[in-house]
Amino acid sequence: MASSIFNPPSSTTALLLRSRHPIRVGPTSLRFFTIRSSPPSSRVLSIVASATEASAKVIDGKAVAKQIREEIAVEVSKMKEAVGVIPGLAVILVGDRKDSATYVRNKKKACESVGINSLEVNLPEDSTEEEVLNYISDYNDDPAVHGILVQLPLPSHINERNVLNAVRIEKDVDGFHPLNIGRLAMRGRDPLFVPCTPKGCIELLHRYGISIKGKRAVVIGRSNIVGMPAALLLQREDATVTVVHSRTSNPEEITRQADIIISAVGQPNMVRGSWIKPGAVIIDVGINPVDDPSSSRGYKLVGDVCYEEAIQVASAITPVPGGVGPMTIAMLLQNTLSSAKRIHSFE
Amino acid sequence: MASSIFNPPSSTTALLLRSRHPIRVGPTSLRFFTIRSSPPSSRVLSIVASATEASAKVIDGKAVAKQIREEIAVEVSKMKEAVGVIPGLAVILVGDRKDSATYVRNKKKACESVGINSLEVNLPEDSTEEEVLNYISDYNDDPAVHGILVQLPLPSHINERNVLNAVRIEKDVDGFHPLNIGRLAMRGRDPLFVPCTPKGCIELLHRYGISIKGKRAVVIGRSNIVGMPAALLLQREDATVTVVHSRTSNPEEITRQADIIISAVGQPNMVRGSWIKPGAVIIDVGINPVDDPSSSRGYKLVGDVCYEEAIQVASAITPVPGGVGPMTIAMLLQNTLSSAKRIHSFE
Repeated sequence: MASSIFNPPSSTTALLLRSRHPIRVGPTSLRFFTIRSSPPSSRVLSIVASATEASAKVIDGKAVAKQIREEIAVEVSKMKEAVGVIPGLAVILVGDRKDSATYVRNKKKACESVGINSLEVNLPEDSTEEEVLNYISDYNDDPAVHGILVQLPLPSHINERNVLNAVRIEKDVDGFHPLNIGRLAMRGRDPLFVPCTPKGCIELLHRYGISIKGKRAVVIGRSNIVGMPAALLLQREDATVTVVHSRTSNPEEITRQADIIISAVGQPNMVRGSWIKPGAVIIDVGINPVDDPSSSRGYKLVGDVCYEEAIQVASAITPVPGGVGPMTIAMLLQNTLSSAKRIHSFE
Repeated sequence: MASSIFNPPSSTTALLLRSRHPIRVGPTSLRFFTIRSSPPSSRVLSIVASATEASAKVIDGKAVAKQIREEIAVEVSKMKEAVGVIPGLAVILVGDRKDSATYVRNKKKACESVGINSLEVNLPEDSTEEEVLNYISDYNDDPAVHGILVQLPLPSHINERNVLNAVRIEKDVDGFHPLNIGRLAMRGRDPLFVPCTPKGCIELLHRYGISIKGKRAVVIGRSNIVGMPAALLLQREDATVTVVHSRTSNPEEITRQADIIISAVGQPNMVRGSWIKPGAVIIDVGINPVDDPSSSRGYKLVGDVCYEEAIQVASAITPVPGGVGPMTIAMLLQNTLSSAKRIHSFE
């Protein structure tokens, strides 16, 4: 029978290639050089050093995100000077989930770091749907707010769809509105916003000069917030895209055909070395906590892709953490900035 | 490895198998028997007879469409009796393209055959965009109209997007509105309407009892009206979908992996026998005129798939004409009926 995508084969004997593969990303890309001109972070250096016989280039999401934030800060300050407008992002948090509170705090800090105003409302766990909708309505009408973000998940008594649908599409910086997704899927149409995480994945490919056109791409996972829009984005850039999901009977075989792999399933180390075509580029969206007694926290974060195996087969790979993660917030800032620019017709 | 239920013999050296392959569609399917109970059309019989050593089952779109029209006629009459409402379809035709006029005439006749009211306006070629928009606005407000269809292509001086966007989403029986496409792409969301041609492709698979879940599917072509929504539909039914397009570097190799092929590119005979995995199911959306001196019209219609080769490799295939073509109009009638039902809350 098929090995379910959620039960990866445990045998890892074959296909752990030890040879060096040509690195396709790289030095011919002007944009990539722009990034390289800032010194690589020490963390990335240590990752490269610790991987034995590694051949893959590490795609440094932290450095790229920093670069993008710097670009945004320049734009924000230009806009303020030229038209007196400061982009504003409103974040609505309902309840007191610790992880959500951390995400919201990080978004707030990121806004501050680039000069974007951040407004935040923290509603109690037992808030009614109507109360949440009232806040959205206020932010929809508030000219100082250019982006509205509802931190998910919401408490179970609140209908997530109703809440997300209430966000005015011009301020839907998350890009989750069906109208945005429809435009993303259609040729000749353009969405107002592209969802942040998949947008960050593609931006990493762009900034590292990795060509997408005509490439085989496999997206593992078909969630509304990552997998599905990532597949649509890759297709917009002329990749030949296959979406692998929980019902796929031979995920390993299909994934091995890919020049570009984007994995977003939330299964630690599911994609083994044997799933990867030598020289493939890997964007790992998964951020999965696994037990780690050696860590003071008792756990560590790993991706969907078995990093130690993949780095020996792939030509480039994002680490976890420090890969896609920092890009998501950078793209949220970028969406907020472009929303403010659009609303105020500022180029 | 998973064994596909299509169970292709993989060891064959030549891809054009001459032996008979097991027919997987069929007799266990109740819905299929329903169709079989109506006599097969003589045209289909002649196609089968003329293909030497054919093994594929011919998917008779004409017979299925007839069956569906009969089902719709029953529903329309029930609805009229119960709530006094007759579904109405308005068609807007601009200019005097002969092919468009034929399509509109066929739609009108199909409406009549099932008891759906058809309203039609034929505007001159030099109509302004505003004039077209005025008609749409009237139909949007007309309670006797449950579906509005703008026959494409429009004259080049009219902006197609503006016109299509003006159709109220509750009456967009073509299903081309980005909001519909977005909902089609998203898990947990449902479109108000599914575009007619791709819906017809999937309906053929359903009616012939061809299972989609877990199958490899290749969609050739990524148009907004067929390829892209067909891929989204197949994915909704848990196929593992790859979209092959003009930038795909190895379309033959990828297509040969498919259990189900939907081709919608408009290239006569592009998909050869060697592109097809033995036992695959083929839905051919292409309707391409090619020179044929033996025909009184001087041409004949062929699909994207080389029928003579494919019928010897595939397990089931739609002919051209008589495959997907008749299904498109049947699905338009079905969308109009369900629109009327939804508007009048009639189950």
